[in-house]
Amino acid sequence: MISITIKNLITDYPDFPKEGIIFKDISPIFQNPEAFKEVVKSMANMPILKKADAIIAIDARGFILGSAISFFLTKPMIFARKPGKLPGDLISKSYNLEYGSNSLYLQKNALKKFESFAIVDDLLATGGTAKCVFEILKDLNKKIEGLSVLIELKELNGRANLKIPVDSLITF
Amino acid sequence: MISITIKNLITDYPDFPKEGIIFKDISPIFQNPEAFKEVVKSMANMPILKKADAIIAIDARGFILGSAISFFLTKPMIFARKPGKLPGDLISKSYNLEYGSNSLYLQKNALKKFESFAIVDDLLATGGTAKCVFEILKDLNKKIEGLSVLIELKELNGRANLKIPVDSLITF
Repeated sequence: MISITIKNLITDYPDFPKEGIIFKDISPIFQNPEAFKEVVKSMANMPILKKADAIIAIDARGFILGSAISFFLTKPMIFARKPGKLPGDLISKSYNLEYGSNSLYLQKNALKKFESFAIVDDLLATGGTAKCVFEILKDLNKKIEGLSVLIELKELNGRANLKIPVDSLITF
Repeated sequence: MISITIKNLITDYPDFPKEGIIFKDISPIFQNPEAFKEVVKSMANMPILKKADAIIAIDARGFILGSAISFFLTKPMIFARKPGKLPGDLISKSYNLEYGSNSLYLQKNALKKFESFAIVDDLLATGGTAKCVFEILKDLNKKIEGLSVLIELKELNGRANLKIPVDSLITF
């Protein structure tokens, strides 16, 4: 269980980045090192993360959590990035998200090195981003242990949209 | 001193993202947890980072290093982000980079909480990004301890372009 402080640090911004969206700003957590430590250690304890050979961190807020978790767990981390950011031989898929659409790219040589993966991101909304990475891994016959997120927005039902296990620390 | 392994893990991609640019890919470091730990602990030992009240991590590769360093040092971290990413009352400046131009945004309420800052990024090229953050801080009368980077590209002379101290772990 996460302390009540963490939940209170998350700040709502209505109508950002678009009208009708309530943005959950997690920035205040990182301004409070004790809160950040609690989040990282709690997420590192999630079964999905413990089982995986490697972490896939999602561009860009997933990098923030993924990096500290990778450091703390001494686990390899690879990156799922937006277009134009990663060099080399890439694999990609496009996806729809809560607002708009985008695509994610991973390096083939990075995926080749490991067998099972945990996806790390800040927030599970409709699940489009994680589903995109899941489908890339499925095409490569890789094992996906699941998705580990700090925040799950229950109302958007992303968990049902994904066909993989989900560990979330905080629900709204 | 950093071990020779770290330098060897960094992979050159010529003509990425544009012709004439040799992209230094640091992804292999994060696929090797021992190498990642060595990088984080070595950067955390930099005088600039030790002196600062808070870390400013630059979108997006700066997040990866900044996050693990913030976790390891138990220091607050705030984010300098590309347009459209941060909610709330923001302060911004535009800058020129090695290829193209962009602007960075920071949250005013985050900057208000701390007095002195260390900028963390993966790479110092011409120094445009760090200079942009430095100018934002100067306008707010905040103290900037300097810039901490993993890689410094000596030829591009970014250090001379910046008027702040620079700590780099690896030079090319």
